[in-house]
Amino acid sequence: MKQYTVLTLFPEMIIQAFSHSILARAQKENHICIEAIDIRSFSKNKQKHVDDYPYGGGAGMVMQAQPIYDAYQSIPESKKGRVIYLSPQGKTFTQQLAQELAKEENIVFLCGHYEGVDERVLEQLEVEEISIGDFVLTGGEIAAIAVIDAVARLVPGVLGKEASFQEESFSDGLLEYPQYTRPPVFMGRAVPDILLSGHHGNIKKWRKEQSILRTKQKRPDLLK
Amino acid sequence: MKQYTVLTLFPEMIIQAFSHSILARAQKENHICIEAIDIRSFSKNKQKHVDDYPYGGGAGMVMQAQPIYDAYQSIPESKKGRVIYLSPQGKTFTQQLAQELAKEENIVFLCGHYEGVDERVLEQLEVEEISIGDFVLTGGEIAAIAVIDAVARLVPGVLGKEASFQEESFSDGLLEYPQYTRPPVFMGRAVPDILLSGHHGNIKKWRKEQSILRTKQKRPDLLK
Repeated sequence: MKQYTVLTLFPEMIIQAFSHSILARAQKENHICIEAIDIRSFSKNKQKHVDDYPYGGGAGMVMQAQPIYDAYQSIPESKKGRVIYLSPQGKTFTQQLAQELAKEENIVFLCGHYEGVDERVLEQLEVEEISIGDFVLTGGEIAAIAVIDAVARLVPGVLGKEASFQEESFSDGLLEYPQYTRPPVFMGRAVPDILLSGHHGNIKKWRKEQSILRTKQKRPDLLK
Repeated sequence: MKQYTVLTLFPEMIIQAFSHSILARAQKENHICIEAIDIRSFSKNKQKHVDDYPYGGGAGMVMQAQPIYDAYQSIPESKKGRVIYLSPQGKTFTQQLAQELAKEENIVFLCGHYEGVDERVLEQLEVEEISIGDFVLTGGEIAAIAVIDAVARLVPGVLGKEASFQEESFSDGLLEYPQYTRPPVFMGRAVPDILLSGHHGNIKKWRKEQSILRTKQKRPDLLK
């Protein structure tokens, strides 16, 4: 069973995000275990504050090192592993990295908030910074949810059929071909004849052509 | 008030994701309104199925056009707007696109599942395909949550101080400088002296240098 532990100020958000659909079932079936640890419960002050003003001034608050460090130390040794800090400064997350992370037994995710996290705890925990893209979120939780989702679905047993992986976007460096299902005509738009032909060889060829065509049109950079 | 309407098979997932922290408050204060419409409730068959086998064969199921189309048509005219389909095939979402979308009054998000969505409803609704990155998720919900979060926080009033925007990653094409807060020494690691100097000019200069240095080290592509 793969273990994903999330250090966060909003543990409910993590738990709720994985209480639906495929990854809820994957947890029930013990393919994966997702746990959230509330950083706030490791605050040492009476008001349970976890942030303070930035040294040198500036807008916003910075998350303090101590509650994060103590939250990490509360994880049992058997569940510790690579520590990923979600940050727009990180290495860009891709399907290739998802495949690599899907092999890890344990991953710890650290979610920041406010203007950021005290740099020293990032150094102390030797975090690996990962970004889901060049945009800014209100916190690291949504990025952690995206990474866990992309990784966990690749864990054997989580999705039904292995076959699905071979036909999805990026699996062969191409975007997926267009899909159609019943009815044969929807608002005057017909399914391409070839898909109704029953000729598997031609269908395969058509789909490959469509994949290449779409990749050329939408993401020519992938073809390089 | 900005209106974000999400067409999804998992409406609870959307509602829960925005029931915490900054965007929960932004909804209470009527800066934004986030609604989720259950595509399944527009299924016309007894079993409430919304998917069917792909024409031409292949693994997985494809979401049918009709329930999605009818779910879209159920949106009042005053709340209709750009329709964004979350898909790994889309244009890559960036902070620039977030800034553009933050100006829209209404946005409709369509979340796919299974192997995809019948191509014809995407054509019929003239969707704009957006991808949060080159990775595959179990469904479009997490991508929609990420886009809504990145967009909504830029809506005036949602975050406290305008100042925060000017100092965050990507705002000036650079990554953010490192942040520190109390205590002055954490596990033997001291805050850089300059941040304790009180000399605002020097601090500003140091932070700019750090931003450039980090961008060079971590994301040299941003400097081009």
